[in-house]
Amino acid sequence: QCILTGTWVNDLGSNMTISTVNSSGEFNGTYYTAVADRPDKIQNSLLLGFQHLKEQPTFGFTVNWNFSDSTSVFTGQCFVDKHGEEILKTTWLMRLRVESIHDDWKATR
Amino acid sequence: QCILTGTWVNDLGSNMTISTVNSSGEFNGTYYTAVADRPDKIQNSLLLGFQHLKEQPTFGFTVNWNFSDSTSVFTGQCFVDKHGEEILKTTWLMRLRVESIHDDWKATR
Amino acid sequence: QCILTGTWVNDLGSNMTISTVNSSGEFNGTYYTAVADRPDKIQNSLLLGFQHLKEQPTFGFTVNWNFSDSTSVFTGQCFVDKHGEEILKTTWLMRLRVESIHDDWKATR
Amino acid sequence: QCILTGTWVNDLGSNMTISTVNSSGEFNGTYYTAVADRPDKIQNSLLLGFQHLKEQPTFGFTVNWNFSDSTSVFTGQCFVDKHGEEILKTTWLMRLRVESIHDDWKATR
Repeated sequence: QCILTGTWVNDLGSNMTISTVNSSGEFNGTYYTAVADRPDKIQNSLLLGFQHLKEQPTFGFTVNWNFSDSTSVFTGQCFVDKHGEEILKTTWLMRLRVESIHDDWKATR
Repeated sequence: QCILTGTWVNDLGSNMTISTVNSSGEFNGTYYTAVADRPDKIQNSLLLGFQHLKEQPTFGFTVNWNFSDSTSVFTGQCFVDKHGEEILKTTWLMRLRVESIHDDWKATR
Repeated sequence: QCILTGTWVNDLGSNMTISTVNSSGEFNGTYYTAVADRPDKIQNSLLLGFQHLKEQPTFGFTVNWNFSDSTSVFTGQCFVDKHGEEILKTTWLMRLRVESIHDDWKATR
Repeated sequence: QCILTGTWVNDLGSNMTISTVNSSGEFNGTYYTAVADRPDKIQNSLLLGFQHLKEQPTFGFTVNWNFSDSTSVFTGQCFVDKHGEEILKTTWLMRLRVESIHDDWKATR
């Protein structure tokens, strides 16, 4: 219960599809974001991550944006609500590529 | 240049070893943290992530802590300094497992 | 328009009251949180911050929790929706007090 | 001990001066940042915040940038090292002004 396999949609309308979760909790899938600095460029991008294999597990994954030089990471927990439905609560960081280490301070959203 | 393969040590003394990065930028490895809520429990844990395949790339990875129910994600960029040495600048989020969705607000460090 | 003066409630049920905003954008008020590590201890706490004085301004404020050793900071922007109603979009950090600088890594939520 | 009054410099070369901390822990001061999206525009900006009044206190403050529409918040803790010197460990969020609530996802660094 609370296996991440399947399709998920967030509040912004982004959606992701996760294929099988293996016996170490590893999974891959695709992420289609609803928002981007250049929305016209958006493409389906690969994701890769881990979940724990227990009730209401924590998980994390990386999205390798293939239409930009950025990378995002997401981490959260899968909860089962009182109706038995699964909800993911997630936070994220997005790393932008900057030319020089002097701009590192502003590269993470 | 700036392929993540190899062993990296951070300011806190944590270290990670990344094996080969494949042609899609996918990599795996192990993370040995120097800090934890219960330091006596620390064990080498698996990591999995992506890097872009270009100069000074951004990257991200997930660490599936095998001695706790938590998951961490890291994202950053590899820079080459004026001496030709590679430096990783990284930020992270750590997700703790909480019993109920009502505690979600306090589950991310 | 989008002066923060007034009472605001968030998704978790926390509420804050902001008194007058002065001509430099400085304001004070009180924050009553709906969530805490020790909910039985919750008390109204003072807040202090700044907003810009223009349309849909950004703002920030500090809450000095008077029932714990922690401090929280909030930052966000006031938006006017199509019905003319004001909405605050906000993110926050909460700093916990730790005994030693070695625990600094885990002190921010 | 660990009263924030005084001048502090961070790793990036930014510096801040905090005037007297009053009996509720409230303080104000000025922040001169070493980094900005438009470095040529940088000016001294006002800050306002709170610290707790105990050993190694947590604190938080808001900086109202007067050369941009952004607002930053900082939170951290003051530590005394083994030589008796005070060190501030701090994290921050910076809120950029965006035109519409649809861009809210990318407005916080």
